[in-house]
Amino acid sequence: MSMDVTFLGTGSAYPSPHRGASALVLRTDGECWLFDAGEGTQTQLMKSQLRAGRITKVFISHLHGDHLFGLPGLLCTVSLNSNPECQENLKCVDIYGPQGLRTFLRVALGLTGSQLLFPYAVHELEPTADQCPAEGQLSLEMTEERSPLHPQEQPGRTISLDVSSDSYFLFEDKKFVVKSFRLFHRIPSFGFCIQEHDRPGRLKTEILKDLGLKPGPLYGRLKAGEPVTLEGGRVLRPSEVLEDSIPGRKVCIFGDCSSTLGEGALALCSGADVLVHEATLGNEHREKAVDHGHSTPDMAAAVARACGARHLVLYHFSQRYKPCCLHKDGEGDDVSELKRQAEEALQDSGVEVTLAEDFLTLQIPLKR
Amino acid sequence: MSMDVTFLGTGSAYPSPHRGASALVLRTDGECWLFDAGEGTQTQLMKSQLRAGRITKVFISHLHGDHLFGLPGLLCTVSLNSNPECQENLKCVDIYGPQGLRTFLRVALGLTGSQLLFPYAVHELEPTADQCPAEGQLSLEMTEERSPLHPQEQPGRTISLDVSSDSYFLFEDKKFVVKSFRLFHRIPSFGFCIQEHDRPGRLKTEILKDLGLKPGPLYGRLKAGEPVTLEGGRVLRPSEVLEDSIPGRKVCIFGDCSSTLGEGALALCSGADVLVHEATLGNEHREKAVDHGHSTPDMAAAVARACGARHLVLYHFSQRYKPCCLHKDGEGDDVSELKRQAEEALQDSGVEVTLAEDFLTLQIPLKR
Repeated sequence: MSMDVTFLGTGSAYPSPHRGASALVLRTDGECWLFDAGEGTQTQLMKSQLRAGRITKVFISHLHGDHLFGLPGLLCTVSLNSNPECQENLKCVDIYGPQGLRTFLRVALGLTGSQLLFPYAVHELEPTADQCPAEGQLSLEMTEERSPLHPQEQPGRTISLDVSSDSYFLFEDKKFVVKSFRLFHRIPSFGFCIQEHDRPGRLKTEILKDLGLKPGPLYGRLKAGEPVTLEGGRVLRPSEVLEDSIPGRKVCIFGDCSSTLGEGALALCSGADVLVHEATLGNEHREKAVDHGHSTPDMAAAVARACGARHLVLYHFSQRYKPCCLHKDGEGDDVSELKRQAEEALQDSGVEVTLAEDFLTLQIPLKR
Repeated sequence: MSMDVTFLGTGSAYPSPHRGASALVLRTDGECWLFDAGEGTQTQLMKSQLRAGRITKVFISHLHGDHLFGLPGLLCTVSLNSNPECQENLKCVDIYGPQGLRTFLRVALGLTGSQLLFPYAVHELEPTADQCPAEGQLSLEMTEERSPLHPQEQPGRTISLDVSSDSYFLFEDKKFVVKSFRLFHRIPSFGFCIQEHDRPGRLKTEILKDLGLKPGPLYGRLKAGEPVTLEGGRVLRPSEVLEDSIPGRKVCIFGDCSSTLGEGALALCSGADVLVHEATLGNEHREKAVDHGHSTPDMAAAVARACGARHLVLYHFSQRYKPCCLHKDGEGDDVSELKRQAEEALQDSGVEVTLAEDFLTLQIPLKR
């Protein structure tokens, strides 16, 4: 199964002509999951190789505008461009995000008289009290739901923290289990862990051949984990003929944060193949970064190291950092310095560091 | 006084990489008034020669997302980039638009925890019942205000139709009087008429010289409309020494519509120097245009003719029309055809026709 991540916006605070506001897409076999939707996400999508109509799920890390203001317009445009004849286009879009998201969408779509051709459901993550600093309280009274459902809205779940694992269980499907974890920012912020199911190991065909079994449906049943009764009554268990299962891929996407909260984040993200973490400002601005609830490359690197991640991808750069291709030596802030800082912090760790740029696509190969 | 209009987005329905969503700026002596704010308006502003920080007033024609979804982000970014030391930056931003706008902003700014460095006030236009087709009713229950004011929100006015003039009086300042008029669209939609005050005529200096009066402060007082008592007691009235006053400029900006409602629009826009009107689809798609509450070049031309406008500017084109510079002969729809259609309809009328494009700036010269 192919799997890749495309960054649609890598800028913090607001979209600029050089960097879109936060948005990235995880694509597996053509299906697209959108993580954050800052203003302009739909235009960035149009400029990319991705198709907005393939978005089946949306995940919002936190309710700051640079991660959210593009969502209502994106939904409207996907609807405008969808073909009502095609059943595939009319499936429910599941949207996951912090408490308040439901009201935001209901008001934004409702007051603008926006009708969608497909249904949607908002599944809200209930933040814990330590995720809500004073500043975050402001909006709490607004999360109380008073409006009726939008005509295309289906009731969504309210998801509470599973205290034992310090994480939120979002859903599990045939390919993935998706959970969320708590971050510390100025308002409740979450990260998402997308864990692909393990694949069964290679069939030990030499054993099968020794047993006189030829390739065919029986091989498939064993591979799928089914015991098989052979002629003569012997029951062949899959574990006898399968090598160790091959671990699924794990992609972890952090929302804005100056730190993690509790044990959930590190536990969930342990051994991540790709860990996407913000690095809003360089190490030399650490105090300012933390003051605004953000991270530096050093801080992102420490998370990647603690998780034993293979690959750290930095994004969400202050708009003061122009993309590499526009940066002139000696002029202004150099975004590649952020990569250097993370690499320095990860020396000898084996963690690869990548600097995201708008429209960068990162393949996530199958493990062997 | 310099006066110009800059189009930031000329596309309908949604922003695309080729055409921004609806937004235009009327600039007078450096002060900017923004008309509509579709998603991406802040990025378009950054690409233009205008400065977002100079926006003092915002006018929203109607609440469809392609005219509105860029407003919360724009306000946040203006605030982020404003200098709290500069008093000029901290003046109240007045926002005018249909009922519901106040709730939209309150929820969008409130739920995202957005704090602004400047105050703002939303002055709502109360639509009339005939402006609210069935589709528009959907959102009405949401216009009821239930949340407290946003921390930076100042109480705004609710402006009702002045039945005698069939118009809404928005405000009058030293330079302008601004009114609004009713349009028919799928939801309540408004147009705006910006009428510059007349300027006093030229001083008849030959008369003044005959009276033995030399250029100086006295000339200024007469020009400003003050009577002056001469030596010997004679009172010189300004009307005796001023030529006819010079009419102020009039700019009329129509929101989305398939027709005007009542007599207000035509009366207010009579003799407009610049009349900005939508032309979403070509004449050959008239039925579809009207069905969606939109206009064709023919329909826009009829309005311009009825008003005796000098200059009709078409905008709000379906995204099927690429900008002229990207259009290839014989491929797809040609936007210049829309201009041709309007010109044909305005033959012998003396009305000039211009096709707006993103970033087009139109000077509006003083009358002499």
